[in-house]
Amino acid sequence: MTEQTRIMDWDSISKALASVDVVAEMERAFVAYSADKCVIPPVGELNFTEPRGDVHIKYGYVRDEEFYVVKIASGFYDNPSLGLASSNGLMLLFRQRTGELAAVLLDEGRLTDIRTAAAGAVAARHLAPSEVTRIGILGTGTQARLQLEYLRGVVDCERALVWGRNPERSEQFAREMSDGDFQVEVAAASSDVAAMCNLIVTTTPAESPLLDRAAVRPGTHITAVGSDSPAKQELDAAILGVSELVVADSISQCRERGEISHALRAGVIQEADLVELGALIAGQAPGRQNDQQITVADLTGVAVQDVQIASAVFV
Amino acid sequence: MTEQTRIMDWDSISKALASVDVVAEMERAFVAYSADKCVIPPVGELNFTEPRGDVHIKYGYVRDEEFYVVKIASGFYDNPSLGLASSNGLMLLFRQRTGELAAVLLDEGRLTDIRTAAAGAVAARHLAPSEVTRIGILGTGTQARLQLEYLRGVVDCERALVWGRNPERSEQFAREMSDGDFQVEVAAASSDVAAMCNLIVTTTPAESPLLDRAAVRPGTHITAVGSDSPAKQELDAAILGVSELVVADSISQCRERGEISHALRAGVIQEADLVELGALIAGQAPGRQNDQQITVADLTGVAVQDVQIASAVFV
Repeated sequence: MTEQTRIMDWDSISKALASVDVVAEMERAFVAYSADKCVIPPVGELNFTEPRGDVHIKYGYVRDEEFYVVKIASGFYDNPSLGLASSNGLMLLFRQRTGELAAVLLDEGRLTDIRTAAAGAVAARHLAPSEVTRIGILGTGTQARLQLEYLRGVVDCERALVWGRNPERSEQFAREMSDGDFQVEVAAASSDVAAMCNLIVTTTPAESPLLDRAAVRPGTHITAVGSDSPAKQELDAAILGVSELVVADSISQCRERGEISHALRAGVIQEADLVELGALIAGQAPGRQNDQQITVADLTGVAVQDVQIASAVFV
Repeated sequence: MTEQTRIMDWDSISKALASVDVVAEMERAFVAYSADKCVIPPVGELNFTEPRGDVHIKYGYVRDEEFYVVKIASGFYDNPSLGLASSNGLMLLFRQRTGELAAVLLDEGRLTDIRTAAAGAVAARHLAPSEVTRIGILGTGTQARLQLEYLRGVVDCERALVWGRNPERSEQFAREMSDGDFQVEVAAASSDVAAMCNLIVTTTPAESPLLDRAAVRPGTHITAVGSDSPAKQELDAAILGVSELVVADSISQCRERGEISHALRAGVIQEADLVELGALIAGQAPGRQNDQQITVADLTGVAVQDVQIASAVFV
């Protein structure tokens, strides 16, 4: 490479992030994606059995932009027993006109967490009811924390309710996420979150529904983030069936994975009824019409988000 | 990553290479591949039209070894007009047990050139006639140079003949590759190379045959390196038809691309007759039987070579 490749560790990435409006970048990403301006090939995959690990290679670009991006992300499930994070990864930024490697972003998977959380904020900005009474969070992990942080930037609401399978972790989450301006409490059951919140984000790796159709009140928006593989499911498919609006980050991807895939297979929704998030942002599809509608956004994660956040960090 | 990721530029890679026996590493790679010890998914691809460029993502691992490798390699064909090399790339080395990024090898595509040339030396070691009278090289580029360098390490012969489309480049090649011990001359026609050499390596991007059946003499071994895509072809398919032994680096890959794919489609060879290079090295398939046989090795490049060379450079 004639131009120097920039190697960025997490310190320099997080400094660069400070001047990036990640939520706005994700809006741009989804609009470009839904306008068919992106080239995003199928995900590459490597699997290991002993110890169990999955590696995903996501790559692509937005046409006529400066860069293409290759992301390698892994989950190795025995890592915590070694004192290591289970997820890991990096992003590579190349110039579309020459193939030169512009940057290696040694983000250890954190940019993926952040772009996923920012997408939740995008969904809330466009789909939350006009008055959010309380934010509900299912799950207590990194993604649950980030979702709440990013929601606070786009939603005018000072109360949240969290539920997780492990009560101690839920308590710890509530304690750490509360501050003078913001109050987080712990729910005894996931149905309590549905009963008391009208903006709900689900962030768990559950493989059977955590929320029933009956528990969800009119006017609620739910963003489902946890289900990123065919086996995972956080929402009763009937919730999508009664929703006035079901939004996918990528319709083609949601056919195969996520809450929408379950609801399509159950026959409670039709693909023709789906709206893509980028079309909604661009005003090409109607959004929420009133505060009685139930809406669902299913976010399975699209490589264009990686392209966008990596480019924004570098520039 | 808790362990530090090692970032290696070309200087440090080439220092590390000095203590690696690349030819022996390639032998190990091919043996592991043919013994079905490797996981090598299909190649990922990105294509650009303005300016024209191709990006290939090759990845995989040898089971029970320490690392898995992801290689990103590109060719951007307008780069020379910008004073840049057309090919570019890097390799990433990750730990199989944890997904940790062990190293970023900023090799700018050179390790691919080297592992390709070393594979040519492997083929020559196992398939060349007992006495090589003269080494023939078609092509005058980087790969032609490297093939000749690596062949000098495995073949006891002090004369070579080069042919390229551009006579000035051929002259330059001959001048620069000759030294006190080794004499390189220029051939006026590619058929002269066949007439005067019994170990021939073809390294061009030709899309129609450079060597005819009639020109190739008994006892010749040909290694074809240039044809790595379905459209490229350097050898008359009839040469493979009359060969006593046709060796593929990867039978499954050679079905789709390279000289073997053309000969299979032409019906002059059958897949059942093919021998895989790793099986030959391991002694599981008979090699050359005498100095009258014509043999061909078709090297399309297998990701396990990247896995092996990257691991060897790092360790």
